[in-house]
Amino acid sequence: MTKIVIKFGGSSVGSIDRIIAAAKIIKKKFDKNNKIIVVVSAMAGKTNELVKQSEKISKNFSKRELDVLLTSGEQVTSALLAGALEEKGVRARSYMSWQIPILTDGDHNNSRIINMHVEKINKYISNKGVAIIPGFQGITKDGEITTIGRGGSDATAVAIAKIFNTDECEIYTDVEGVYSTDPRHFLKAKKINKISYEEMLEMSSLGAKVMQASAVQTAMMYDLPLHVRSTFSDVKGTKIFSSENIDYSKTVTGVTYTKDEAKITLLGVQDKPGVAADIFEPLGKKFINVDMVIQNISPDGKTTDLTFTIKRSDLNKTIKIIKSNKKNVKYKSISSDKKVSKVSIVGAGMITAPGVTYKMFRALAQEKVNILAISTSEIKLSVIINETNTTKAVKKLHTVFNLD
Amino acid sequence: MTKIVIKFGGSSVGSIDRIIAAAKIIKKKFDKNNKIIVVVSAMAGKTNELVKQSEKISKNFSKRELDVLLTSGEQVTSALLAGALEEKGVRARSYMSWQIPILTDGDHNNSRIINMHVEKINKYISNKGVAIIPGFQGITKDGEITTIGRGGSDATAVAIAKIFNTDECEIYTDVEGVYSTDPRHFLKAKKINKISYEEMLEMSSLGAKVMQASAVQTAMMYDLPLHVRSTFSDVKGTKIFSSENIDYSKTVTGVTYTKDEAKITLLGVQDKPGVAADIFEPLGKKFINVDMVIQNISPDGKTTDLTFTIKRSDLNKTIKIIKSNKKNVKYKSISSDKKVSKVSIVGAGMITAPGVTYKMFRALAQEKVNILAISTSEIKLSVIINETNTTKAVKKLHTVFNLD
Repeated sequence: MTKIVIKFGGSSVGSIDRIIAAAKIIKKKFDKNNKIIVVVSAMAGKTNELVKQSEKISKNFSKRELDVLLTSGEQVTSALLAGALEEKGVRARSYMSWQIPILTDGDHNNSRIINMHVEKINKYISNKGVAIIPGFQGITKDGEITTIGRGGSDATAVAIAKIFNTDECEIYTDVEGVYSTDPRHFLKAKKINKISYEEMLEMSSLGAKVMQASAVQTAMMYDLPLHVRSTFSDVKGTKIFSSENIDYSKTVTGVTYTKDEAKITLLGVQDKPGVAADIFEPLGKKFINVDMVIQNISPDGKTTDLTFTIKRSDLNKTIKIIKSNKKNVKYKSISSDKKVSKVSIVGAGMITAPGVTYKMFRALAQEKVNILAISTSEIKLSVIINETNTTKAVKKLHTVFNLD
Repeated sequence: MTKIVIKFGGSSVGSIDRIIAAAKIIKKKFDKNNKIIVVVSAMAGKTNELVKQSEKISKNFSKRELDVLLTSGEQVTSALLAGALEEKGVRARSYMSWQIPILTDGDHNNSRIINMHVEKINKYISNKGVAIIPGFQGITKDGEITTIGRGGSDATAVAIAKIFNTDECEIYTDVEGVYSTDPRHFLKAKKINKISYEEMLEMSSLGAKVMQASAVQTAMMYDLPLHVRSTFSDVKGTKIFSSENIDYSKTVTGVTYTKDEAKITLLGVQDKPGVAADIFEPLGKKFINVDMVIQNISPDGKTTDLTFTIKRSDLNKTIKIIKSNKKNVKYKSISSDKKVSKVSIVGAGMITAPGVTYKMFRALAQEKVNILAISTSEIKLSVIINETNTTKAVKKLHTVFNLD
């Protein structure tokens, strides 16, 4: 008997009809004699609706009570799905996180799963029953309800895969898998059959919002294979596992992009040790996430120009913080550009393939796309460009790296 | 320091604005140095919405999972109200029933509260904090989630009043209290300042849906005074306590009515012992609630005519059951009338006041209202009449018994 954990995302349980469809998928696997644990998200839109209600009450709503509030969403889906399975003649029951329990550690709104008790559920699923577990939540050792961050149902599924030692971990979502680029905007996008954890992480942090990044990280750490697939069709999805299982005939696996970037340049910054820390520390304290940083040494060797990118929505706040910090960080002038995007090529094959950088820059030059900043990692190459160039850049790179 | 339990019904927490208004009411009492436990219902309409979702999945939805589903409603209100209090600078937190715990016994969808642990909450409210508790629910000793029947938040409040030995139990709702008749349809209806448990029970089972009957019964059993009042105005409401505290200057306290009645008459039923049981047993087994029963002995002494009333929605089902039972119960013919209503006068003063019955019948005769059936108890007198006569009957009785 195979032990499987199956996770359904918000859109896969977003209506009563979809919950019934999810029950059908589960029943099919159940009838094949599998031992099944199901993890569910809240119905699509529910968590946002609850957050909005809390914000109407307070801009600084109690973090403790926000957790109590939000966890109700997955509770509802768990009960409805268990009822839908029973209706189909499949023995099933929901287990709230305090009934299992799922133990968490850390702050409200941002805890992490540290352990789960397996006995009750192992007994139930061995005895021809499907266990339904609400994702995204747990309780502390003091019995406080906590949540593990948005998209946390993926993390719950991966934690279950590890702690229950399941043979498979399937992530059901509203797309057929991970694509070589965004299939909603680029007709030539192709589904990727196999991808490594590292590539998946680069893809998801760059905008391919198929799975939550920290869940992929955990899966990578314990080498747990994942299978991302669609609730709405029966085709195989994308398998995510360690790169040694993958034959890299292609150097580049995908082209990703994000359009919510902004760029700030500080000209004539005094070039002395610690200046970068002086600039970025106050930003970090205000939870502003700095993405790319490029520093050029100026010809005189005394000052430097510093460019960095942030989320577009943080732009005004960031400039304000830097200006108010002028007594610690001296610079000649500050400029910003909020109409930029980031385009990246991702591929584990890049490590061993020389010339990828050159090929990318040449391709962009052919399209007359000016590169404003560059950042590289072992399996990723990102450029900041004018937002208006995004589409032609993505199309060109998709073609040049044989992804069409 | 006074210890108070305050219950807010669904309409009193039916929107974010109303939750904020409820927090204001609580803060006022908190600022007067009271120790406060709050019980909340689900937001108005929420429980019905969840029930409908479950019915879309199955007409026979798992009772266990229905409890998991429905309890999420009060969880949401508890968290929002706790957050609203914190926003107003009042220390507050929600306690889920498994965190306290509130222990229940009995079946899913229909359990009853048998105990609560008081330590945690007593400590919290003694230490300048408001405890918010979801009504309508509890957990069994095996850790199963159960609910205690619709309107069960009243029962939770009364159980808290008893187990925590509170000085007051206030039931906040969308009306200003209990009225001498329905204030939505009769301009002359007057708010009743004081009413006994017994009268309140007769009033609520007869259609004045201000409080859940079983909660009033529990309060009566332990002699816990209740105060029903409005969330929307600051006026005093109706106090409910034992009849010895009430000065009965009026014989009759209120006139109530229900319009969802139907009447069935069996003519020429064989008059032998056990025949009534033979008629009503199959109805009881199908959960049909028989209200009034009148039996007349026929002139020949061998057959009898039997009339009884039921909920109008049960009429067709009831006739079907009786007809299919003809081999056990012989009768000449069956007739029914679904256009009848029940009008009642209620008053603890009736016990010691002779002539009430006569006065009621005379008054109805003056209005040319024909009485189809009569039923009496110590503090209540009900008649079945044609539905079209309801308004004039209620008006007349309200005047005759000095309630205008």
